[in-house]
Amino acid sequence: MAQTIKVAIDGMGGDNAPDMIIGGIELACKRLNDVEFLLFGDEVLLRPLLNAHAEAKSVCEIRHTDEAITAEEKPTVALRSGKNSSMRLAIDAVKSGEAAALISAGNTGALMAMATVVLRTLPGIDRPAIAASLPTERSQTVLLDLGANIDCSADNLVQFAVMGEVYARAELGLAQPSIGILNVGAEVLKGNDAVKEASTILQSSDLPISFYGFVEGDDIAKGTVDVIVTDGFTGNVALKTAEGAVAMFIHHLRGALTSSLITKIGTLLVRPALNIVRNKFDPRRYNGAMLVGLNGICIKSHGGTDALGFSNAVNVAVNLVRRDFNEVIKEDLSRVMKNDQPELRSAVN
Amino acid sequence: MAQTIKVAIDGMGGDNAPDMIIGGIELACKRLNDVEFLLFGDEVLLRPLLNAHAEAKSVCEIRHTDEAITAEEKPTVALRSGKNSSMRLAIDAVKSGEAAALISAGNTGALMAMATVVLRTLPGIDRPAIAASLPTERSQTVLLDLGANIDCSADNLVQFAVMGEVYARAELGLAQPSIGILNVGAEVLKGNDAVKEASTILQSSDLPISFYGFVEGDDIAKGTVDVIVTDGFTGNVALKTAEGAVAMFIHHLRGALTSSLITKIGTLLVRPALNIVRNKFDPRRYNGAMLVGLNGICIKSHGGTDALGFSNAVNVAVNLVRRDFNEVIKEDLSRVMKNDQPELRSAVN
Repeated sequence: MAQTIKVAIDGMGGDNAPDMIIGGIELACKRLNDVEFLLFGDEVLLRPLLNAHAEAKSVCEIRHTDEAITAEEKPTVALRSGKNSSMRLAIDAVKSGEAAALISAGNTGALMAMATVVLRTLPGIDRPAIAASLPTERSQTVLLDLGANIDCSADNLVQFAVMGEVYARAELGLAQPSIGILNVGAEVLKGNDAVKEASTILQSSDLPISFYGFVEGDDIAKGTVDVIVTDGFTGNVALKTAEGAVAMFIHHLRGALTSSLITKIGTLLVRPALNIVRNKFDPRRYNGAMLVGLNGICIKSHGGTDALGFSNAVNVAVNLVRRDFNEVIKEDLSRVMKNDQPELRSAVN
Repeated sequence: MAQTIKVAIDGMGGDNAPDMIIGGIELACKRLNDVEFLLFGDEVLLRPLLNAHAEAKSVCEIRHTDEAITAEEKPTVALRSGKNSSMRLAIDAVKSGEAAALISAGNTGALMAMATVVLRTLPGIDRPAIAASLPTERSQTVLLDLGANIDCSADNLVQFAVMGEVYARAELGLAQPSIGILNVGAEVLKGNDAVKEASTILQSSDLPISFYGFVEGDDIAKGTVDVIVTDGFTGNVALKTAEGAVAMFIHHLRGALTSSLITKIGTLLVRPALNIVRNKFDPRRYNGAMLVGLNGICIKSHGGTDALGFSNAVNVAVNLVRRDFNEVIKEDLSRVMKNDQPELRSAVN
């Protein structure tokens, strides 16, 4: 029998918290065994919700705090005065070893700042990045950073490439993932200084990774490479733009399919197939991104998600714990870092 | 009867040039009257193509040059040594007044640099931006910059807001277009310095434009605002990411619809409706972006487009000429610029 896994939950983070969090745990319980939750947040709000969700209630232990980080809180303020917040206490539970992973749907900047200070980055990594695997034409592609680091240097991007490689290896089970840097064109002279310099470093380095070169926006969905590296500003915009574009297409498709009696009859016949495709690209199905590069498994859920989306973030956390992801990434990183070419040390350290 | 419009064409720009260019002119001729083309490029290649396209042949005048700007050419090199290139001669034809507009599917950086030097920017505008209107859930949204300016200051973004407003007014016929700045979140503390400063300027200014605030990637397809302002790196990635996401959805949809006999029968009934939606989002249907902010109508076609896409770029150019767009934007800009608040002068000049 598998060992029981304990996951710390920021019970107050997210637009629809805490309702969607308890609902998400309830849904996750139907799929998971041997998982327990430390639920940090306001007991006055959490207790009645648990009373209404029997399965969640049986696996949740409330740790009361009446402090929470708001969506508007600056990361520096959260660091200074958020020490008793639900988000911070969830991070502390991973630091102390009481929990094997934490999940928060709250303020990304605050989570990034507090998790980095408390858990610390892995050797050779300056800043963690938010990574998630997205559906493509072929299979899945890991995209990072999705919003943790707004301004990125070439060194940051090189580190993201290394972390993305290791993440794709562990998460997608690929033996030799290919890495691309997101740019506005494939030609070497395109782009800003950071992407050009990062590309030069990766091309000339002896890092044991398979660097493809530059890729463009449409290569994300094409699945041209297994890992796409970008700064957190561009990555966040790209992810949300792709989600919006698919939602728009579905919106217009729905309109067209109900435009006449004939299309309505046809739609009855194709509906199961349409639903499969629509579900495949439902952002809630791939909710739950990892803050890679930290000593600990820290999962960021989309702030605006619902119970179904949050239950997927729980799945992501549990899967990473079961695969002992943090040990795998540490070993893989040290393997990659063993190269002692001077340009790599300066690039990666 | 409408006056004959003369359009200058860079006959050698684009991945599939010159074939797709002559094919595109041939297609455009079927829809347009009273348009003639000055076709700059290698006569040895262009003449046989025209001989095979009767309608294009009747409205094209070849202006021979055997020089062309390659996709890899640096903008500085193009400026210095590309004076006899097909791209440059097309720009010169607009400068001299011989042509009312020009179209190039060639190297974006070179086009931007040469067009800016030859045509000059409009009063109060430092750098032109590439603008195009994209389909949304509601109707259309103007997105700029799509790749002309990789690094943008707050002042650049403020100028893009003004140009986008004027463009949406003329192109989409909106009385008071709303403007948003693309960011990673709606909260004021989110984003990089340039977007935060641009937002502060637009919020506190007396510019006669309707500033909405920050929008996120999914707001592009939602149509939350009429104009979305961003730097050329993010805008280029966002545009291509959206196109790729829609293409991926269609790819998986096709697979699902042919998965069984029942879905195949249903697909027969809904096919006309599906085709309408697919065509609506075919990137070729909205190919042809304008380099706004210049003294002259300069249209950038996607480099990888085909004849259908290029014919749409021709439509865009002709429509803008017919609407006397360059005079409209000059008048509108001077109306907006009349405000003499110091922060605006510094922001916009």
